Amino acid sequence: MSLGPVAVVGVGLMGGSLGLALAGRAGAREVRGVDPDPEALRVARAVGAISHAAESVEEAAAGAEAVFLAAPVPLLPDLARRALAASGPDCVVTDVGSAKTGVLAALGDAPRERFIGGHPVCGGERTGVVFARQELFQGATWFLTPEPDARPDLFERLHGLVAALGARPVAIDPDVHDRLMALVSHLPHVLAGALVNQAATTAPGGREALRSAGPSFVDLTRVAGSNPPLWADILLANRAAVLEAIRGFATGLADVEAAVERGDREWLLGFVGRAAEARARLRAAADAAPVAPARVVVALPNRPGALSEIATALGHAHINIEDLQLRPGPPGGEGELELVVDGDDAAREAVRLAAERGYRVRRA
Amino acid sequence: MSLGPVAVVGVGLMGGSLGLALAGRAGAREVRGVDPDPEALRVARAVGAISHAAESVEEAAAGAEAVFLAAPVPLLPDLARRALAASGPDCVVTDVGSAKTGVLAALGDAPRERFIGGHPVCGGERTGVVFARQELFQGATWFLTPEPDARPDLFERLHGLVAALGARPVAIDPDVHDRLMALVSHLPHVLAGALVNQAATTAPGGREALRSAGPSFVDLTRVAGSNPPLWADILLANRAAVLEAIRGFATGLADVEAAVERGDREWLLGFVGRAAEARARLRAAADAAPVAPARVVVALPNRPGALSEIATALGHAHINIEDLQLRPGPPGGEGELELVVDGDDAAREAVRLAAERGYRVRRA
Repeated sequence: MSLGPVAVVGVGLMGGSLGLALAGRAGAREVRGVDPDPEALRVARAVGAISHAAESVEEAAAGAEAVFLAAPVPLLPDLARRALAASGPDCVVTDVGSAKTGVLAALGDAPRERFIGGHPVCGGERTGVVFARQELFQGATWFLTPEPDARPDLFERLHGLVAALGARPVAIDPDVHDRLMALVSHLPHVLAGALVNQAATTAPGGREALRSAGPSFVDLTRVAGSNPPLWADILLANRAAVLEAIRGFATGLADVEAAVERGDREWLLGFVGRAAEARARLRAAADAAPVAPARVVVALPNRPGALSEIATALGHAHINIEDLQLRPGPPGGEGELELVVDGDDAAREAVRLAAERGYRVRRA
Repeated sequence: MSLGPVAVVGVGLMGGSLGLALAGRAGAREVRGVDPDPEALRVARAVGAISHAAESVEEAAAGAEAVFLAAPVPLLPDLARRALAASGPDCVVTDVGSAKTGVLAALGDAPRERFIGGHPVCGGERTGVVFARQELFQGATWFLTPEPDARPDLFERLHGLVAALGARPVAIDPDVHDRLMALVSHLPHVLAGALVNQAATTAPGGREALRSAGPSFVDLTRVAGSNPPLWADILLANRAAVLEAIRGFATGLADVEAAVERGDREWLLGFVGRAAEARARLRAAADAAPVAPARVVVALPNRPGALSEIATALGHAHINIEDLQLRPGPPGGEGELELVVDGDDAAREAVRLAAERGYRVRRA
């Protein structure tokens, strides 16, 4: 893949790794970096994460083909508006924030058809560009949240870029994304932090008693305390969904408490048993054998939202789009969308989902 | 170490591993096993975990030097009474249950000076004697809960046996043990189960959405759903401490909820920051460099409870007693207790703790 200039705004662990992967795996010859910290920029250049240090988002975005916003979550709305304003009509702007609805809601009258939210589900315990590595995204799920007005050609480009970085792009509705992340990432971080803090303050025999903690405590608290500013910001950026998840958890915990209190062994057996089944399903999904890729071709009407709708429907159905190609039709006419998915079952389901939504679709 | 007959009551993963380690590491030539499941006994004999299958606890305990109760927690009180009644005046009876106050409270007028509760902090994801292995206890903390009336010579024997099995014996007050385990083991299991159940029932995009769960969710739920009957029993056996831990956790979680709701970034920074500090302390403790053993000799008055008191004081102070030797004095007179601990600092602290309690004590 040959790629014009790209910009990375914020060169920490994530932005630095992005720069390395864009240069090393996606063939970007010019990676422009922006960061308020001159030392981060210096290191980023030294390790080859960026080829140019820009003075501002505007300078980095001008003439870029893609802008990746890898800054702290609270800064994303402003950075997105500035990057959209400063970049050309053919530039896709995306971010890597852990919550998606907020930044989309804050775009206002910016040219939002060029913004597609993103979220690579990966990271490292240690932050900063010195720990950046281009393999960071290898095999990771990378959520994309194209809205109906997102430009299909820009979605195609971003999808291809994400795949080139080694990640698995998954289109998802921003609201579904935020509720899912609240449940499987933000809530776990809250639980881990609350547990380690409770243990540190109330463990009988003093804090040092924790030395005798077994593997379950170590597992449960592994993510506790990582990067306080990042996590404070994420919890607040995804406030509504995080509150819903915490409240749901508190209700579930109160049920366990009540069962223990009344000595209800049957209920507790069911509780642990259901968890065993859920864990087994998770494992089965993770261990699923790889299958041969299969192709699906959808006739794409010349109207906004079609590609986003199809990609998101497949994302929600957990159909992995390995590759995606747009073939424009005659001006004003139908184009074609070719999708490569994981195996026959997925292709059959993709055909069903597209047909159900009124598209002409076939196996290829 | 040469060892007379020992009995293992319950030959699952734990009892089977005990049998293998007693024979393979502690030099037991006769390991008697008891189990209601004849197939478990057959496998235990086939893999060498036991040398004799006994028909009853009474048969196994008669003439044994030590009886290890490795049965489900609810059965322990009755088994302890039966083993104490059937065994000779020189036999130590212990258990490996995850909660300690209940079994001690249920001993009644049994010869409790021969019972010393135990709890090896280890296990495996898979249960049953077929997964038994003699290395199971290697490096594990093995809590011992000697009460004041526990016989010093039997405590010495059990301490030595546990060390011979490869574990690190740590004396602890039974109540402290139960509250500590509620916090660092039982509560984590409850949290993991509640989280995986919540995710399985409420994840947007359906259960399969969990495939996209990141590493924090995987970490948090690793212990979920393991062995429903075992865990239902543990939660009920340690009911009071588990309820206290759940309630403390619910309070902490409500604090996080309130901070997220009012958008209190400072509070959240403190919350995650404290967790980071607590985690760092845990790691520092785990990574502490090994030190040279040091010896302490305590003059042991001829009264019950002295050894239990000293061992428990050291256990609570996290001073690892690597070896322990009793040298009886003249009839009715003072004996000597020689302790090997981890390094000079620990020895100094052990001297202070013993002196503080009125014992004559010196470095050796």
